Amino acid sequence: MTFVHQLRPRYAEVDQQGVVFNAHWLTYFDDACTRFFESLGWDPKEAFFGDFDFMIVKAVLEWEGPAGFDEVVDIEVAPTRLGTKSFDLRYRASVDGRPACEGVITYVSVKPSTHESTPIPDAVRTRLEALVDA
Amino acid sequence: MTFVHQLRPRYAEVDQQGVVFNAHWLTYFDDACTRFFESLGWDPKEAFFGDFDFMIVKAVLEWEGPAGFDEVVDIEVAPTRLGTKSFDLRYRASVDGRPACEGVITYVSVKPSTHESTPIPDAVRTRLEALVDA
Amino acid sequence: MTFVHQLRPRYAEVDQQGVVFNAHWLTYFDDACTRFFESLGWDPKEAFFGDFDFMIVKAVLEWEGPAGFDEVVDIEVAPTRLGTKSFDLRYRASVDGRPACEGVITYVSVKPSTHESTPIPDAVRTRLEALVDA
Amino acid sequence: MTFVHQLRPRYAEVDQQGVVFNAHWLTYFDDACTRFFESLGWDPKEAFFGDFDFMIVKAVLEWEGPAGFDEVVDIEVAPTRLGTKSFDLRYRASVDGRPACEGVITYVSVKPSTHESTPIPDAVRTRLEALVDA
Repeated sequence: MTFVHQLRPRYAEVDQQGVVFNAHWLTYFDDACTRFFESLGWDPKEAFFGDFDFMIVKAVLEWEGPAGFDEVVDIEVAPTRLGTKSFDLRYRASVDGRPACEGVITYVSVKPSTHESTPIPDAVRTRLEALVDA
Repeated sequence: MTFVHQLRPRYAEVDQQGVVFNAHWLTYFDDACTRFFESLGWDPKEAFFGDFDFMIVKAVLEWEGPAGFDEVVDIEVAPTRLGTKSFDLRYRASVDGRPACEGVITYVSVKPSTHESTPIPDAVRTRLEALVDA
Repeated sequence: MTFVHQLRPRYAEVDQQGVVFNAHWLTYFDDACTRFFESLGWDPKEAFFGDFDFMIVKAVLEWEGPAGFDEVVDIEVAPTRLGTKSFDLRYRASVDGRPACEGVITYVSVKPSTHESTPIPDAVRTRLEALVDA
Repeated sequence: MTFVHQLRPRYAEVDQQGVVFNAHWLTYFDDACTRFFESLGWDPKEAFFGDFDFMIVKAVLEWEGPAGFDEVVDIEVAPTRLGTKSFDLRYRASVDGRPACEGVITYVSVKPSTHESTPIPDAVRTRLEALVDA
């Protein structure tokens, strides 16, 4: 079953065009990523500083429709690629079923508290693999 | 000559990994876009609400190296594609000559104060064309 | 019963000191304000653009302890003063019962879609009054 | 002579009321603070992590008029109080000479990379004292 994170855009996040300013989608997806790893069994505020960490290396984002202040935004999160040191998560955001923004983000695994790349830890790989195959 | 916007990351924009949080690059590029159009002869705070406006439809971002608090970031801006209603701007950010983040962003021209697409106005097209050809 | 809004600081909101960057508390309080008015029976995304709106005129904020990434932050919201055109809301944020940040914010009632002050609408006044007296 | 930091609000920072969203003023003042200490002779990206650091403990903010997208905002910065471990900076922001937002922010000196309070280092005290007396 696909993981879904739900949020409501804040007043501060909506611009004069009446839509969520584009940069906030990366923040929303980061937030969704946090909750996604929590759903896999890790406490983010400990795991990301001890067990594993990652840095963003690429993002491809496409906007498909507007999201406005306090609308209900659902963000589906799913891994779509697993390499040795890097992996992709795909985010699909919608408002009442209408597509709003889709992103595919590539992360590289790093040793916590460093910028040094390292293979994805086995425990993480196992959990992601099960979802890529799904 | 390529347009370059310079900025220095704020303390608020740097995260616990010691680097600019990823979403802020979209804001930096938006800021660079504002200054880019100013460099072409428009006053952004009037032009974007009367002469022409655009919305983001796609962004491809690649991170190549870190940028930290108060470092000097240079962002080159150049148009790389011009369609009838949409165009691409390429942003190349570097810190002391080291690449930090590169983005190619696709915008669609809209009638100011609406979300309705419209051909890129001739005055804008002419200015961008000269730079695409460069 | 005091209204409480709960949130968890995003990774993007925590700075190199390991705490929520100060400005975000105003955003958190704004978010708590949105949910507070929802709890009184209004749909914020419609009410703030048709029934009533307000602008911030003063904020007094005191920081009492840290809040870090993904901790559970509870924000109590209560009206503490009601004038003809302006009112105060008090926000008390805590993490696991430890005080983190307290704010008293003064808002002035404005006609929706304008910056023109106007008496607080009766329906809003009645609901707030009941809570100030409590 | 009073130190003045100049900035132009970004499109991302302006909300549906057409004004800079309130929380961003704390970020602007933080940015002005960075430049203020630079004007006193320190390189912020080194000084704040080695020589001295401080955390915000109180902010009193008053909004006096609007600031919109890409307007020119001037922020005057001046120390107004010096204690043993804490001090106040006053920020006065204006747009074309019209007051926009004023803030008085209290900071406590901390040992860099900790949250532990410590007396304001002598070198900092001396520089601030000269300006408080001014």
